[in-house]
Order: sequence, then structure tokens, then C-alpha cells
Amino acid sequence: MPVDMGLWRRLKDEAYRRVLEDIEIGYMDSDIVDVILFFFKRKYSFTTSSCSGRITVVDAVMPWKRKDSTVIFKKHSTVSIDDVVKYLSEVPVSRLWLIVTGPIIHVNSAKLSEAREVIKIARDSGFKHSGIMSMGKKGIISELRTGIRIAQLLKDKERLYITRDDLEGILRIFNEALLEGKKRLKRLEENLRRSVS
Amino acid sequence: MPVDMGLWRRLKDEAYRRVLEDIEIGYMDSDIVDVILFFFKRKYSFTTSSCSGRITVVDAVMPWKRKDSTVIFKKHSTVSIDDVVKYLSEVPVSRLWLIVTGPIIHVNSAKLSEAREVIKIARDSGFKHSGIMSMGKKGIISELRTGIRIAQLLKDKERLYITRDDLEGILRIFNEALLEGKKRLKRLEENLRRSVS
Repeated sequence: MPVDMGLWRRLKDEAYRRVLEDIEIGYMDSDIVDVILFFFKRKYSFTTSSCSGRITVVDAVMPWKRKDSTVIFKKHSTVSIDDVVKYLSEVPVSRLWLIVTGPIIHVNSAKLSEAREVIKIARDSGFKHSGIMSMGKKGIISELRTGIRIAQLLKDKERLYITRDDLEGILRIFNEALLEGKKRLKRLEENLRRSVS
Repeated sequence: MPVDMGLWRRLKDEAYRRVLEDIEIGYMDSDIVDVILFFFKRKYSFTTSSCSGRITVVDAVMPWKRKDSTVIFKKHSTVSIDDVVKYLSEVPVSRLWLIVTGPIIHVNSAKLSEAREVIKIARDSGFKHSGIMSMGKKGIISELRTGIRIAQLLKDKERLYITRDDLEGILRIFNEALLEGKKRLKRLEENLRRSVS
């Protein structure tokens, strides 16, 4: 099933309008704006969704579950103890997890050779878990991601697994992980700049 | 760059011999043997590496780092407090992490349509993060993986982040995560059986 180029171009145009709106509203995470725009500059690619990396507090049975889970706190930059400590005194519905994830970008490419080139650039920038997730007439969807991810159990209904002092130490490490993700995003930006010009 | 079918068949034959040896030696994880053999039964696929899911204790700066990291403990079935509690009294070189990961399988397919079918079967079995990682004359490599993964910081050089009682609670959750991975592996096995016959 080859890509329908007419449809693909329409999707790219629509996505571009949405991105420009998101930037204007300030809705889009500033760390990732330039990377996104570099993808749109490529003739046969554009991005469909993205995250520059973030630290969250999530109430969920397991950290990968979406169903019956609630994001209680979310921040795309480093986190202080005051941002998070208040959640330790509440009783969770299920389990309370502190999660850090590196940047994730979904790219739609019109050609397989382009998808492969994008994945190569991503890999060389430290996005080592990048791959093609689906193909269809709407385009070839790649997911660009690093292996950066920690999920730490903070609390369940019976027990608090962490002291305030522990949380300080853990947040230092989580912030370090977040910044490593941002550094790789910067490297991706530079490698994209080089590949476009 | 299309797949070189002569080379690909040679690689499949070699891989098959290795798998049979590994099974005979008992080296291969018994939870995953049937899944592996079902992949080999497919005309245009075989597996290159696999893990049925495991719980590890790793000494590393960050849980995704391979460099300067040491796997201190590794088990492909549920873990008891006695398996792990001893590591809490040692001082780590860097940081001590308890990690659970779901099953991961690398499949080499000779055709793009086959790679896509394998990924579809995997996704339908709960391997939601599956995708094509590379393509070349040796074949098309897909990684089949779930989102199951928790990394919990246990200890660093300054501080122990966990009590023995906490560890009991955390291991219950880690074992639950491990078993969820095994369940999805079983589902994959059944879906592969159905697709082969």
C-alpha cells in the first residue's frame, strides 16, 4: 500500500497550520520548536506529535497503563522538591509514580528512503530506540525516542515508599535524566540543521 | 537496498542451528521457546535475539546506560525478597537500580509485507511498542516490545532509598509486572500459532 501523495500533502499542510498556531498560542514546548520546524522543512517529512521530555507524577496501577490513570503533575523542565512533595501526603486511588521520560517525536514521511534517513539522523543524535511504527496511504510513521525513562514508585494505598530526604536525592537524578534528554534533543536539532542546508 | 535472499536464507539457517543448540543446552529461557520456533516456521521470518522478560539489579549511573554498568542479579521468573535484599547492604560503584522489563524479541524478515504482518500480530498481542528498526541486505529487523518497564532506585553511594519492608511491597509490584509480560508473550504465542496454521 503506497503513500497517497495528494492525501499526504494535505495532511502536512494541515499539520503545519496546527504547529504555527500552537507556537503562537505558546502551547508548544519551546525546547522542541526548532526541531519540529526542521522536520517540516524536509520535503518528505513532517511531525505529527512530540514531547521534549518531561517529569510527571501519575496515579496508575502500573506506569505504562493509560486506562484508569491520572496525570497529577507534569513539567517539561527541572522539578523542585516543592513541586512534588505535596503529593506525598495524599492517598492515591491506585499507586503514585514519579516518571521521567526523554523526548519522543512522531514523524510522518512520504517515502521509505526518507523515513530511513530520518531514523538514521535520530539514532546518531542519541535517539537509539527509533523505528518505523506503521505504514499506510497516509504516510510512514516513525517514532523517534531515547531509552531515557525512570519510573519510581512513591506511594500506594498502604504505604509511603519514600521520605522527603529520599525525594530530594531522587529528584536530583530525575532532573539529570531530563537534562540528558534535552541535550540529545539539541543534538538532533543540530544534525537536522546540517542535513537540511 | 533490497534484501539479499541468498544471504538471508543462510542467516536463517545459521540462526536456526544456534536456537536448537541453545534449547538443547537449556540456555534458552523456556517461556519463550515456542514463540521463537513459531517465528522460524514462518517462511520469511526468524528471530535474532529475545528475552522473555526479567527482573534485574543493575549498578549504573542511569538504568538505560550500558557503559560502566554491571548486572548484579538477573532472573526471568518472579523474585523473592531473599534474592534481592542482600544487595542493599553493599555499597554500589554508582547507583543500584531494580529493573523489570517485559519481553523483547528481534525478528529478521525477508519482506516488508512480512515485517508489517509480524508487527501487527505483535501489537495485537500487547507488544504495543513494536516497529521496524533497520533494513538492509541482511533483512528487515523489527523489535517487538511491550511498554512494561519499571526502574526503581534502591541505593547510591550516599543513601539507601528503601527499607526491607518497602522492598517487599515493591517486589510484589515488580513480580506483577513481570507476569503481565509473560501473559502477553503467551498471547503472542497463540496468535502466532493461529497465523501459521
